[in-house]
Formats: sequence, C-alpha cells, structure tokens
Amino acid sequence: MKIALAQLNYRIGDFEKNIEKIIDFAQIARLSDADLVVFSELAVCGYPPFDLLKMNDFIRKCEQAVDTIAEKCFDIPILLGTPQKNSSGKGNPLFNTAVFLHQGKRKYFGKTTLSENIVLNEKHYFEPTTTIETLDFKGKKIAISIGEAVDLAIFSSKNPDLTIILSASCFDYTQAEKRAETIRNKALQLQCPLLFVNQVGAQTGFIFDGGSMAVSANGIIAQSLPFFEEKMDFVDIETLSDFKLKTDRHNHTSKVERIYHALILGIRDYFEKSGFRKAVLGLSGGIDSALVMTLTAKALGAQNVLGVLMPSRFSTDHSVNDAVALAKKLGCPHKTISIEPAFKIFQESLNPIFENRPFDITEENLQARIRAVLLMAISNKFGNMLLNTSNKSECAVGYGTLYGDTCGGLSVLGDLYKTEVFEMARWINRNEEIIPWNTINKPPSAELRPDQKDCDSLPDYNILDQILFQHIENEKSAEEISNLGFEITLVKRVLRMVASNEYKRYQAAPTLRVSPKAFGYERHFPIVMKLYN
Amino acid sequence: MKIALAQLNYRIGDFEKNIEKIIDFAQIARLSDADLVVFSELAVCGYPPFDLLKMNDFIRKCEQAVDTIAEKCFDIPILLGTPQKNSSGKGNPLFNTAVFLHQGKRKYFGKTTLSENIVLNEKHYFEPTTTIETLDFKGKKIAISIGEAVDLAIFSSKNPDLTIILSASCFDYTQAEKRAETIRNKALQLQCPLLFVNQVGAQTGFIFDGGSMAVSANGIIAQSLPFFEEKMDFVDIETLSDFKLKTDRHNHTSKVERIYHALILGIRDYFEKSGFRKAVLGLSGGIDSALVMTLTAKALGAQNVLGVLMPSRFSTDHSVNDAVALAKKLGCPHKTISIEPAFKIFQESLNPIFENRPFDITEENLQARIRAVLLMAISNKFGNMLLNTSNKSECAVGYGTLYGDTCGGLSVLGDLYKTEVFEMARWINRNEEIIPWNTINKPPSAELRPDQKDCDSLPDYNILDQILFQHIENEKSAEEISNLGFEITLVKRVLRMVASNEYKRYQAAPTLRVSPKAFGYERHFPIVMKLYN
Repeated sequence: MKIALAQLNYRIGDFEKNIEKIIDFAQIARLSDADLVVFSELAVCGYPPFDLLKMNDFIRKCEQAVDTIAEKCFDIPILLGTPQKNSSGKGNPLFNTAVFLHQGKRKYFGKTTLSENIVLNEKHYFEPTTTIETLDFKGKKIAISIGEAVDLAIFSSKNPDLTIILSASCFDYTQAEKRAETIRNKALQLQCPLLFVNQVGAQTGFIFDGGSMAVSANGIIAQSLPFFEEKMDFVDIETLSDFKLKTDRHNHTSKVERIYHALILGIRDYFEKSGFRKAVLGLSGGIDSALVMTLTAKALGAQNVLGVLMPSRFSTDHSVNDAVALAKKLGCPHKTISIEPAFKIFQESLNPIFENRPFDITEENLQARIRAVLLMAISNKFGNMLLNTSNKSECAVGYGTLYGDTCGGLSVLGDLYKTEVFEMARWINRNEEIIPWNTINKPPSAELRPDQKDCDSLPDYNILDQILFQHIENEKSAEEISNLGFEITLVKRVLRMVASNEYKRYQAAPTLRVSPKAFGYERHFPIVMKLYN
Repeated sequence: MKIALAQLNYRIGDFEKNIEKIIDFAQIARLSDADLVVFSELAVCGYPPFDLLKMNDFIRKCEQAVDTIAEKCFDIPILLGTPQKNSSGKGNPLFNTAVFLHQGKRKYFGKTTLSENIVLNEKHYFEPTTTIETLDFKGKKIAISIGEAVDLAIFSSKNPDLTIILSASCFDYTQAEKRAETIRNKALQLQCPLLFVNQVGAQTGFIFDGGSMAVSANGIIAQSLPFFEEKMDFVDIETLSDFKLKTDRHNHTSKVERIYHALILGIRDYFEKSGFRKAVLGLSGGIDSALVMTLTAKALGAQNVLGVLMPSRFSTDHSVNDAVALAKKLGCPHKTISIEPAFKIFQESLNPIFENRPFDITEENLQARIRAVLLMAISNKFGNMLLNTSNKSECAVGYGTLYGDTCGGLSVLGDLYKTEVFEMARWINRNEEIIPWNTINKPPSAELRPDQKDCDSLPDYNILDQILFQHIENEKSAEEISNLGFEITLVKRVLRMVASNEYKRYQAAPTLRVSPKAFGYERHFPIVMKLYN
C-alpha cells in the first residue's frame, strides 16, 4: 500500500484556496498511484481557527468544503482534517476529526487527546472523543489519531496494523527532537508503523514546521519530509513494516539554523497571507535592524525591503555607514530622512508647557516616536508593512520606547534574546560578511543621547539573558536564580524591570514564536502587580 | 453567631499592604464582637495573580502572609482565601483554598468547581478539590465554598447549617442579577443560609464589584453590601435563619449607572495601584474624550486631569469651544498645542519620498500620530498617564489610527459601543449640563480632512452597533444577523471590517471590561484570516 503524506500550507478561513490545493494534491497523488492521501489536522479551514469555530457559517463552510472535495476526488481515498458537529447535545459543540472519503463513503475519527496548550485552547472549542474505531482499508486495520499525543490505552486495545497521525504541531526550537521522540515511542508501544502528517506554514506568529515522517514498528524514522516547506511524499507501507534500518533517516539541524528558517517562513507567510508584498523598517546601523533586514530580504526579495535611515544629532557616523553598507550588500533600497527638523518643532511646540525643563527620557522617547511616525507614514503611503525590530531581552526589561520601538505589524526578533540575535548574525556571516562585522562587534547603543550605551542602564547581555531565561523560560524566582550564581540585588532589579514593563508588552506587535515561551503566548502576568521590594 | 463579611480591595502581590488591611479589619471585627471574619478568594495575594502562582517565592510569601495573620490575629477566628500547595504529586501544583485560622489551629477548604472563564484560566493553575469537609464552629456545621458555583452534589450531602462562599467574581453589566439568582438558588437547594463575600476593586481591566450578601434558607437576600466600595458588614446568623422577609433587600441599578460606577472604580484603581496620580488626554470636542474626561475627573479629582487641545487646519471652532467649555465646567486644567507646525514639517521631511502624491489616509493618520507623540511627551515629562478614548464600535471596525488613537495606558471606553457612550453622556447630563449638549448632539467626526463625518465611511451607529453586538456578544454570523432584518451586503462589510482590524486590536491598550465580551478578554480570532468575500 502506497500512502501520500501531504504536508501543506493552508490559509485560515480561505476555503476556496484550501479546497483547490487539497484537490490538486489529491489528484497528483492519484497519478502517482497512491492508495490513500493524508492531509493534516483541520486542513479544510487551516489551524488554528480560534473563535471562527463558534460561527455557524464557518462550520457550514467546512462541511461544504468536505462535500466539494469528496465529489471532485470521488475515486481517491482521502484522510482529511475537519471540524465536525457534536450532535450529542453534551459537551462542547464540535469534534476535531479526520474524515475518510472514498466513493461516496464517509467515516469520521475524532481527536481523543486535545492539546494542553493554553493559547491554542482546544478544550474550549472541542469535545474529546473517548472511543475510536479503526479504518479497514486494503486489508489493513488502520488507527487514526489527531495529534501526536496518541492515547495508548485507547489505541493499543485496537491492535492496529498501522497508525496515521494528522497533526498541526507548532515549531519551537526544542520541538523537532521532542516530537521525534514522542512518535518513535508511540510506534514502539503500539508495535506498528506510524505515519505523521504535519501542517506547514506560519499562521501569524505560530510557525508550523512540517517535518512529517514515517516510523517503522521498531521505532526508526524511515522517511521524513523537510522542515519549513510544502511537500508531498509517498510511503510504501510494506517496505516500512519490513524496515531493518537501525538509524534514523532524519537530519536535525542546529538551533540557530532552524530558527533562521522558521523566521523566514514566518515573515513570508505573514506578508503573503495578509496581502502585503513589501516591507519597511528603520535602519539604525545596529544589530537588530540589520538582522531583520537580512531575514526579510531573504523572505520577500531584497527589492521589496525598504530601509529608512533616520539620523539625529546623536547618531554616529559609523551607524549611518554600517546601515548603508548592509542595504547595499543585500541590494535593498534605502532612504534617509533626518529627524532633526521634526525633533526641533516638537521641542518648540512643547516648550510653552515644558518651560525649559531639562532633557530627559521624554526627549529620548520623542526621537523614537518621530521615527515611528515617519515609518508609518511611508507604510501608509506605499503599502509597505512596518517590521518591528525589538528583541526579547529589550521586550523583557522594557528597554525601548512604547509607540516608538514597539511599532510594527510583526515582531521578527521578539522571541530571540539579544545574545541569540548576535549568534544568528554571526551564523549568517559564517561564509561571507553579509551583516557588517562592525555592526556585530560594536557595543549596542540606542543613540538617543550623547555617548549612550545599553550597558549604561542594563547589565551585560550575557548576564542579563541568562537571568531572563531562568525567569521566563524556567519560571524561576529571584532567590532560585541567585542560587545559580547571580548577585541577588541584580536579579531582583532585572525581575522588577520585567514585571513593571508588562504594560508595554501588552501593546507589542505579534511575535514570531520560536521558543517554548514567547511573549504574547504562554506567559500571562498581571499588568499591575508588585514583585520584590 | 455574628459573622463579619469583609469586602476588600487587594493589591496583587503586595503582601505587606494586603496583610496590614486584613489584620486591621479582623481587629475591627473583633472589637464589634464578631465570632468569625470572612475575607474573599485569594485575599492574601489579590485575585487574579496569573503566572505569579508559578513562582515558588510567591507561594512562600502567601504562606508567610497566612502565618503572620494567624499570629497577629491569634484569638480572632478568620476565614481567608489563599493558594495552598498540592503535595499529592498528582495534577496541578496548587489548590485554591480558604483557610480557617483560630488560636493556632488551621483547616483548609479547597475549591471544587474551578472557574470556566478562559481568561482567568484557573484550570491551568489549580487542581480542583473533589471532596469537602465542613467546619464545626460554635455548634454549627459550616460548609465552605470558593466561588459561587457551589457543587450541589458534594455540598448537599453534608447537610450544612450554613454555607459560606469566598469569591472573586468579576463585574459585567449582566452579572448582578445572574449572581443573585445563582446564590439564591444555591441557598434554596442546600436549604441553609448562605453568605457570599466578594472581592471589590479593579485589577487592570477586571473590575470586581463587591455586592457581597447574606441569603436566608428560603432564598431571600436579607442583607447586601454595596457595589464598587470597600465595606465590612455584620450578619447575625440566627436572625438570618429565622428570616421571614418575602422580598430582597437588594437594589439593582440601571445598566448605565452600574457601568458608570464600574468605570470610575476601574480608572481610580488602575492609577492608584500603578502609582500614578494624574492623567492626560487629548480633548477633541467630541463625545468620547468628553466622557473620558468627565469620568476621570470624578475618579481622580478634576485638578489631576489635564486636557490637551491639539487643533489642526481641519478642526472646527465648535470643537475647540466645546472642549474648553467642558474643561472649565469640570474644573480640569487644559492646554492647547497646534499640530500645524509638526504636520508641515513631517510633510516636508517626507516629500522627497512622497514626491507630491495626493493627500490620503496617510495624512489623516499623520495628524492622529502627531497628537499621540505630543500627549506621550507630556505624559513622560510630567508623569500623567495617557488615557485612551476609543470606544468599542471604533475598535471593532478599526476606525482609528494605530499608534495614534490607539495610544494610552488604559482604554476607558473600549468596552462601550458608541451608542452606549451617548447614553452615558445623556445620563450624566440628566440633572445638569456637564458635557456640552452640543458635543452630544452634533454628528461625530474625526476632523482629519475637510467636512469629514463618521457616517461618510461607517453606517449610522444605531445600525452599526446592533450588527456588532450580534456578531461580538452573540457570536452570530452574517446570514444570521441579516435574518434579523439587516441588509446582507452591509452585514458582510461590517464583519469583514471587524475581521481585518484584529491586528489593530492586538496592539490596543488594556480595556476596562464592563460587558460579558470585551476586546482583549474572552474573544480570540486569528489576526490573519479570510472572512466573507
């Protein structure tokens, strides 16, 4: 038996495009003599649809999509993710199902173990299925699971010959190994081969990475589909059952490399799916905007990324030179607008109220906000989406101007600590200087007052990022972090900064999620609270 | 037996202040010969603490707070809400409990029915208690529930003489009746008197409204504490058991009046708890900013609310006059800064790039963003928090400039439709003209281009708000709304506007929640999706 694994990129709510794609791939699979074509979880509507699932006409469109696919692919056996109404009157109104379609026959298989993820919140929308039936197909007994958290108690009692998983499993840099381990173990425990078909493509900040695979009954990854790409591949189940390999055919890449590809997919899909073709960003000569421009040039094409230099009296020559050098190297257009005239006018306009009060954080923020106004005007006039260039360290401690640095339709680096930003820049330069080494090697500065350096008000990023990681990713409190060898006064100061800047993060741009704990996703703190004296 | 119901306002994570307040009220209750003092759910730490519950030192501080209170109130019997560690090793690591404290004795009572609210997300933090014990106290068998969703199956088997509910039940304009009905029914079904002690005070956008009460065994509200105020009151249980009244002693106010008080509490607490004393807002002469100024003057004192007029070439005389008239009537300071110089400079700075392209939405947004920059500069320089003045109708359809109208530390009206804004303005003027009638009666306009009116690009607010209410609050799709008598093309246009502006709402300010479905809370849609062609 030959099964096609269709690892595709869907658009949430765009039934026309999703149906067309599903039918196209089903027909290609048929031409390649596939016996069965498997699409991923909630393929008809795209995952995650969130509250669209509460709208009756959305569910009706899902049903109509299944009808259309069943009709157009009448002779092609298909397994397809779709929501299905729960008509029992008990529990949530929907099941998250796979439907098997063939020659007018339909059979539904419900999700037994709903996702525990508090953002995806499946338990709010779906009722879990408590029992399963198998699919008898071409002499095989096939068990079908939605999601890789296969409930062994339910599934092993069925003694399947083959288990197929339809999934929508989200990327973070720890996932590839965890997921492979889970699936490998499920195959071993069920003692049957296992096919895993994942969604690929970004849905705003959620990046689905693909990496579908076929695992033999002895827990070896016999075949795997690429990460971050649409791909259909074919698995011969007989070969898979006989599989004698002792090592996986599965390549894991480094953390920095996989994040790089995730971000490029994230940028490309956010633009493509929201109908934008061009980007604009402020180019400061610093590392963050340099990395965002490099990634975006790769994702959208260099000609579609406009860099805007907006020097002030505090900008250094090297910043301007580094910014121009990068744009030229990448082939991106760039423009320069001085913020001095606007800065002066604002100071004059405000002077009757400010009455010669001294320069302080107000004037620093003013410069950042003038830049945001200029960038948004360009965005509005030409339809270039503004990209946000803040990193996770800055977001954490609030080192950035609200409505200045926080502006943008998408935060590209908001889930990368500053040290990870440096690491990626160096990795990009591994063969050739793309990002000017001067940008990477000079001390970070916001250049909002004379001779300003980040390290004037923040600890060294190597220290800061370790404290932040322990607090954010590992949920550690001040004392526990201090026990790892950091000075308690510093740790408390950092954690207080994190706590007191929740209000800025509340208004931040949606972030491409690449870690297991990104701002705006799994983390939820009160905006007003007291943390440490 | 005389029981004190302590309906207090707590600060999340501020143990010092919470402990002091709890001890003070316990001692006052003792001086009034109370036999028992009841505080609300999670009183030691304030509700909702969200991920603070994941930090070990936060839980340790809760334990230490209970120790301190037990010690300082050794002779005073107390029931107090606190998290408690789940040491079973199974399920979530905490219970949400009431602890009974008296003369060194301690007894814990866990929450059986965790909140279903997807924002409060109690099921993520707490393990429900599956069995309960009663408290034998002064010859009475007392059942203790955390939250008003008392599990009758568990509680009625105990045949309590009295049930006490410690709660943290959040306001929305539908809650008072619903909650009274729930509690009344629980008393009837348990056939015993029932005390309900609620938290009061706002925690960012969550407004806890108090309204604690004592209900007789025959389901009559015998005694009730005020809404939106800290208050301790005493209940004589014997009198309560004998209660013969046939009607409630409980006043329900109108929707507009309760929202008014909720907003004032919400503003006051957000400022107070985040350490701000003064507010600033842009005063356009329109209804939204007029209402926000009126509410804030009431909440913080008129002298603490600075109105800033920022006229442009498109501002009408009546706008400026109406704005000044309001500030004078309320006694608020006001300043005027023309945005013309900055508007001209930005146009000049951008002209090398814009190359004489015609005036469009870019220049409209530019004006709104210049105003935001001025307001934030004043906020930064003087420490006045900027208030956001957008209403729910605008937020829904995206009628407002991102990083312009969307700026502010708190959205005061973000959960009121435009028609509700008008209703409240008229209600405020019921005895006397506070808000100029001209502001209320003139057609709404953003005044960003000549002779602009909201109705040029939006349907009449009476129609728009009904469509929005059906879609947002009632989760209806286009066809269902159209069946209520609205033109389908219009309905689809409105719903598409709502869908395509999710990206603006993602970056909006935290909103004072007054409806059962506020933006930023219960509602969750994808930012990028397709909804209707």
